[in-house]
Amino acid sequence: MPDFNPNVLRIRESPTRKIDSIKERLVKEGKDIILLSAGQPGFPPPRELRERLAKELIEDDTMRLYGYTPTSGLAELRELIANDIKELGGPSLTPDQILVTAGGQAAMFSVLSSILKPGDKVIHFDPTYFGYQPLIEYLGGKVLWIPTDSEYQPNIEKLKEALEREKIKAIILVTPDNPTGRIIDEKHAKALADLAIDHDLWLIVDEAYKTLIFEGEHYWLYKYAPENVIAIDVFSKDPGIPGWRLGFVYSKEELIRRAKLVLQEIVYCPPSIAQHFVIIYLKDRKLKELTRRRLLEELRVRRNKTIESIERYLPEAKVVKPRGGMFSFVDLESYLKKLRMDSEEFSKLLLEKKYVASVPGSYFGPTQKYTVRLSFAAESPERIEEGIRRIRELIDELQSRTPSS
Amino acid sequence: MPDFNPNVLRIRESPTRKIDSIKERLVKEGKDIILLSAGQPGFPPPRELRERLAKELIEDDTMRLYGYTPTSGLAELRELIANDIKELGGPSLTPDQILVTAGGQAAMFSVLSSILKPGDKVIHFDPTYFGYQPLIEYLGGKVLWIPTDSEYQPNIEKLKEALEREKIKAIILVTPDNPTGRIIDEKHAKALADLAIDHDLWLIVDEAYKTLIFEGEHYWLYKYAPENVIAIDVFSKDPGIPGWRLGFVYSKEELIRRAKLVLQEIVYCPPSIAQHFVIIYLKDRKLKELTRRRLLEELRVRRNKTIESIERYLPEAKVVKPRGGMFSFVDLESYLKKLRMDSEEFSKLLLEKKYVASVPGSYFGPTQKYTVRLSFAAESPERIEEGIRRIRELIDELQSRTPSS
Repeated sequence: MPDFNPNVLRIRESPTRKIDSIKERLVKEGKDIILLSAGQPGFPPPRELRERLAKELIEDDTMRLYGYTPTSGLAELRELIANDIKELGGPSLTPDQILVTAGGQAAMFSVLSSILKPGDKVIHFDPTYFGYQPLIEYLGGKVLWIPTDSEYQPNIEKLKEALEREKIKAIILVTPDNPTGRIIDEKHAKALADLAIDHDLWLIVDEAYKTLIFEGEHYWLYKYAPENVIAIDVFSKDPGIPGWRLGFVYSKEELIRRAKLVLQEIVYCPPSIAQHFVIIYLKDRKLKELTRRRLLEELRVRRNKTIESIERYLPEAKVVKPRGGMFSFVDLESYLKKLRMDSEEFSKLLLEKKYVASVPGSYFGPTQKYTVRLSFAAESPERIEEGIRRIRELIDELQSRTPSS
Repeated sequence: MPDFNPNVLRIRESPTRKIDSIKERLVKEGKDIILLSAGQPGFPPPRELRERLAKELIEDDTMRLYGYTPTSGLAELRELIANDIKELGGPSLTPDQILVTAGGQAAMFSVLSSILKPGDKVIHFDPTYFGYQPLIEYLGGKVLWIPTDSEYQPNIEKLKEALEREKIKAIILVTPDNPTGRIIDEKHAKALADLAIDHDLWLIVDEAYKTLIFEGEHYWLYKYAPENVIAIDVFSKDPGIPGWRLGFVYSKEELIRRAKLVLQEIVYCPPSIAQHFVIIYLKDRKLKELTRRRLLEELRVRRNKTIESIERYLPEAKVVKPRGGMFSFVDLESYLKKLRMDSEEFSKLLLEKKYVASVPGSYFGPTQKYTVRLSFAAESPERIEEGIRRIRELIDELQSRTPSS
């Protein structure tokens, strides 16, 4: 039998995929699952936008919507992205500094492949998004974890120590953060930028949630360290087409040129239909602003309901009110320690017994034994409350079965 | 300045991309380019199909069309693909043997990453599609070229010699072929399958043009060597959504499981909108068959016009009438040798002086110094004829300037 590349089986299946497969089994059994695990909004893009694309699909008899596009994306789209970032208060970019990609994952792959050599070390803050680590390890790199403080800002002292101790290739920062909803503050943003410059590091900033900010503001790291920052962004949250796979990278041209070659090898070009959809979206400033405002306000209501429900049903839990994004990160240590259970086991029971899907904190960092990530994007406020009520219900049921020690 | 992975800049830009950029400059200057270079049909998918997708876009207010799908593609789509292959006379497959990918390139990347280790050698037949070599080299592998005979069937004797001389990891076969339109015949199909089994090789079969057969039939290599064959296919040609990025791989489950992990790392999941479009397409057997018949008949007319025009304007050229696919591969040695010019130089002049885009043969194999690939997919029969007339015109003009030797 012909053999395989032995590295491939080392790739872990995405943890949310594992949850999805249990969820799908339960759905098939007729169960109604409350989705506090999903990293995507529970509602489609605005109807007006869908109608405009539908009109083009019907009326345009050319190959315009169907053909290959340049590997780095349609020129018009790259210009619109540059304008949008500028309007949002971000840096001034030329279209050649932008690479449109087949979603955030292809952006991450193209960027990391462009910089990492086997053995290179990459800093992660604990906790952070779990998508980068398997990719880094697949490419032969290694993740080094640095703790965060009580508000989930990176611990700059510990970071400095690590940078003095060993050669680091890159730092990954997600802001607004997944899973915590933390927004990097100005002091920490500057400190990270300065360290990246001083130590010749790449600073990869994942800005996927930049338009979803409830309080505070987004600091554009690129402005502080344009030679070092590689920004990754997506159209999955806004206008809400995660499955269509469209994202982008911006950085200096030397990086974009390389990432483009990798993108060519992995997908040839980003999906044309998604590019045309986002062109319609970004061109219509009124529709764009209305869509973003509606999404933000809906998410704000859901975030508030999440925090209220946690305070009501889980008074011993610790949670930092998310200032942006789609998730709250809840520390259940006080409950779970009594149950002699970590959040991975709890999360599984929660899905199987109470039909509430969540993501255990252990996927986000090595010290996250008792935390869970609860998404407030996919479900209505009422169902969010019901989901959190069931967390308490499960805790109470487990408690009554656990002999007190 | 932080540094890069030095391997990335070794990736060659896709040769058709280079042609595209000259073409785009000329189009901006107002020139009307005859596209004999394009590897995609010149007409969109059938209107009825586009209307059905448009209806779903407008009427479905759920996340169904927009959300992430499983990494290996929607279960319904994988079942429809299995049925379609069976109906076309292909092997019986379970949905778990199918991985839906973000286009042919992602299929190629996922497959090659799953099997290749640095130093592994992969057989190419000269000439063949240029997309595999840069990918193999990027992954640390090496391409070994084996000649074909006058009808472009692989030279089995030379192949045997190579397999006895050195350890080979895989053979790549494109059938119907790009660039020659050759269909593998039964004798060669069996010989390749037997050699793959005897030598424990992977046999990667690119079936992208399997529904575009003018004469003869497609031999499904998987049926001869199910343990060794990895088939790659796309929806770019039929129903005609190259830019939407949708393709698939089928093979034994052990391979699919690995390729899926790679796909997860490069794009997370194939584009959902393209999957829904192809579900509509494959489900409606009448529409599917009508679409394929129409495409095939239109291409047959264009192929015939291509061959007639070559006979008329380029009587000294050698060409094997393509039995499938979208391309004819024309040997201009008799003309170009007199001009002391290879086809790479000629092809460039043809675009810049006569506004006809073609692809030089040197991109398809090491001995293709005087060949060009002419696509008959993108242009009308009249414009194909005009393009070929201009090839002769250019030859005549160059000849009148070349001192006879």
